[in-house]
Amino acid sequence: MTRDLPATLAALAAALPPGVLTPGPDVPARHRQDWSDIDPIEPAALLRPRSTAEVAEALAACNRLGLPVVPQGGLTGLAGGAHPTPGAVVLSLERMQGIEVLDEVGSTMTVLAGTPLAVVQAAAEAVGLHYPVDLGARGSCTIGGNLSTNAGGVRVIRYGMTRENVLGVEFVLADGTVLDLLNTMIKNNAGYDLKHLVIGAEGTLGIVTRAVLRLQPKPASVATALCAVADFAAVTDLLKHLRRRLGPGLTVFEGMWPCYFDFMADRLGTVRRPFAARHGAYVLVEASGFADEAVAQRLEAALAERIDAGAVEDVVIAASERDVRDLWAIREGVSEYGRLLGKIVGYDLGVPIAAMGTLVEAIHRDVEARWPDAHVLCYGHVGDSNLHVVVHIPSAGGHQPHDALDAVVYPLATRFGGTVSAEHGIGILKRAYLPLARSPAAIAVMHRIKGALDPAGILNPGKVLPPAERG
Amino acid sequence: MTRDLPATLAALAAALPPGVLTPGPDVPARHRQDWSDIDPIEPAALLRPRSTAEVAEALAACNRLGLPVVPQGGLTGLAGGAHPTPGAVVLSLERMQGIEVLDEVGSTMTVLAGTPLAVVQAAAEAVGLHYPVDLGARGSCTIGGNLSTNAGGVRVIRYGMTRENVLGVEFVLADGTVLDLLNTMIKNNAGYDLKHLVIGAEGTLGIVTRAVLRLQPKPASVATALCAVADFAAVTDLLKHLRRRLGPGLTVFEGMWPCYFDFMADRLGTVRRPFAARHGAYVLVEASGFADEAVAQRLEAALAERIDAGAVEDVVIAASERDVRDLWAIREGVSEYGRLLGKIVGYDLGVPIAAMGTLVEAIHRDVEARWPDAHVLCYGHVGDSNLHVVVHIPSAGGHQPHDALDAVVYPLATRFGGTVSAEHGIGILKRAYLPLARSPAAIAVMHRIKGALDPAGILNPGKVLPPAERG
Repeated sequence: MTRDLPATLAALAAALPPGVLTPGPDVPARHRQDWSDIDPIEPAALLRPRSTAEVAEALAACNRLGLPVVPQGGLTGLAGGAHPTPGAVVLSLERMQGIEVLDEVGSTMTVLAGTPLAVVQAAAEAVGLHYPVDLGARGSCTIGGNLSTNAGGVRVIRYGMTRENVLGVEFVLADGTVLDLLNTMIKNNAGYDLKHLVIGAEGTLGIVTRAVLRLQPKPASVATALCAVADFAAVTDLLKHLRRRLGPGLTVFEGMWPCYFDFMADRLGTVRRPFAARHGAYVLVEASGFADEAVAQRLEAALAERIDAGAVEDVVIAASERDVRDLWAIREGVSEYGRLLGKIVGYDLGVPIAAMGTLVEAIHRDVEARWPDAHVLCYGHVGDSNLHVVVHIPSAGGHQPHDALDAVVYPLATRFGGTVSAEHGIGILKRAYLPLARSPAAIAVMHRIKGALDPAGILNPGKVLPPAERG
Repeated sequence: MTRDLPATLAALAAALPPGVLTPGPDVPARHRQDWSDIDPIEPAALLRPRSTAEVAEALAACNRLGLPVVPQGGLTGLAGGAHPTPGAVVLSLERMQGIEVLDEVGSTMTVLAGTPLAVVQAAAEAVGLHYPVDLGARGSCTIGGNLSTNAGGVRVIRYGMTRENVLGVEFVLADGTVLDLLNTMIKNNAGYDLKHLVIGAEGTLGIVTRAVLRLQPKPASVATALCAVADFAAVTDLLKHLRRRLGPGLTVFEGMWPCYFDFMADRLGTVRRPFAARHGAYVLVEASGFADEAVAQRLEAALAERIDAGAVEDVVIAASERDVRDLWAIREGVSEYGRLLGKIVGYDLGVPIAAMGTLVEAIHRDVEARWPDAHVLCYGHVGDSNLHVVVHIPSAGGHQPHDALDAVVYPLATRFGGTVSAEHGIGILKRAYLPLARSPAAIAVMHRIKGALDPAGILNPGKVLPPAERG
């Protein structure tokens, strides 16, 4: 930047159509932070373009002025990817909402990036189709944010991450170039598939303005069961059996360790305890079926077989919508951490499924050795090799030892062949730990890609990539 | 290149371990061409590394010497991606074969790039799992080639392209840098997902040496039916209904127009005509089911419903393995083009499903207007928006007018929102047509990526990307 910030902002305002730029002091408070629990920052300004052309104008001007830009979607990220950085403007897609095309024959939907996930889900349902990416923040998170973080959720075991549910994308490069890759076809092997650059790049390579989503047939019936087993070996045994019995009918396989399940069952208050006894591990299972498929009977038969074999200790099968809500209640207790625990430190680890049980034991052992009063709660999308861990140390109160905990947990995860982010992304919070999950050669290539697409480095600086090695 | 070719090759031979380099005149004939029907070329030399380290040594040496390298897998590509280019060495992965890890709990398989697809399929089957990418060349094509071309095939409607079935990859950059991205987890959002750079890049960005494949549960039963309908509108109606009735149980949906079906039924000789009457379009359908799923009854019920509604004119359902082979025989007649037609010109178009019928009519009209004796055969993976067209002009004999036909067919496909390659790739043959399917801005970004990863331009030069615009 060659000029001071006020002069640069004045030049930016002059370059943009009226109404796009809001000066820093007038920026609504919600743009000062995301869900990452990092301290709020007042952005230098808020840009709210109304069209792809305005996004392009804004980025071209910022690029020319050397002014960094932080893209913002629904602001529900947990890693700080959309958190303002000092001296940067934030660019929100909130004015670019709406479903533009819904093609029932092609099973595709073209949407503007600022559209909330829940709106997309409802529009698909309305025509008997299904957009299967689903996560707790569905009412606030946006399609642009989902793409930029390659969002996961509870049905990845069947439908994959956001990346697998996107056919096309329109995005704007740092210099204002618009890339229209709004492909609606399942197959399109015409040169490099550039949409994969921007999906999961957390706004560091381009700003997503539109997406073509792939829709699925909507299941006609869903069956839900909660299973109690002796240990983690029995969890993987159950996964293997249900996969073979149900194939793609297995749409949810959520594991809960006793540290999580018993804590929630005891503390949530509103939840009936589903089992009389305590068990070594718990699994929430959902099977989805289509016409004439008798999915509930098939799930029951598959589970009965495992009970007879002694591999499952107890099962509760939902017989009503009310039962389904009850069975999900403990798993969905994650939204109550604040009330139940106060400040927490959360982890979104990936680890090969076979190593997951050992990793949980090691985290308990090492964290509790150092902080004997620690609560360590473990649960996750077992079928997707994704383990969530939440730690709260009562004696630390409002100042949980993030860095000291990170230094224990991340090296354990990667020692077992795991990764520091399965679905939440790297953002600010995990940038320093990326080298645990990716080799120096891989990070050097990421920098080469960043340099090729955003040579001035204006897009979401300080996110995802650790500083480049001096060569 | 600063030296003449013999001196450069001598320097390369000196830089490599013994036995890696075979001089041009000694190169076996099969390395002089792929299945693209381009005239054979003797490579400057053949490199056959035995390990990733030797691939890295070879590329580092070629990069230093400015010597271009054409990677070769099973040599079954139809677009010329693995065809030798004058003055280049070819690098074959044929010595790097074998399955290294098969993880039943994680449902993953780690394989060397030179392993044939059929070997991978058989190894998965042997433990009750399923690697679902399947194509006619399965016995010869290799996993490295499948990744590099993002291979498709007949079950993409259910399982996606190769890209969707790969969790991790190891590849070598032009300068010899090895990128170990052998991820085995479903979720791993740690920085840019660099595997997507090399998948589908046809060997222009790196050479794949290993892959981690995602395995699926193996279906317990499969039902096959051939349907006759009045026209293409009835084909899309059937697709919509079967998707809603069968969900992911619908694993094949192959359309055949009368120009293809009747030609094959009449000429193949070995095939019983499945229907007494002629119809407006034909669809080969496969449904796959798991334990207790009664998939045959479900498919029958779904088809009976469409017959009752008058939307399907006739159906043959396979009652035996023999029947299944018979129902596939006409679709698999594509391997007999040489015998039935002699020289052909083949197209691998993608087009939004809703436009496919109109595109077929337009291609017939425009090709037959110019070449009245033309055979134009149309069939394709309708559920994947992928249309194959084969043209033979008897009066042209051994000199089919490739370029003149391309000039008719490709603009038609893209006028309807389609693409010039759905699954075969761009290679040499479609390079000039890439600008019909991708914008100048997108092609410029492809060049930026190419420049960032292969600045000397040694990897598969002359493939995929049209020459860069002078800026």
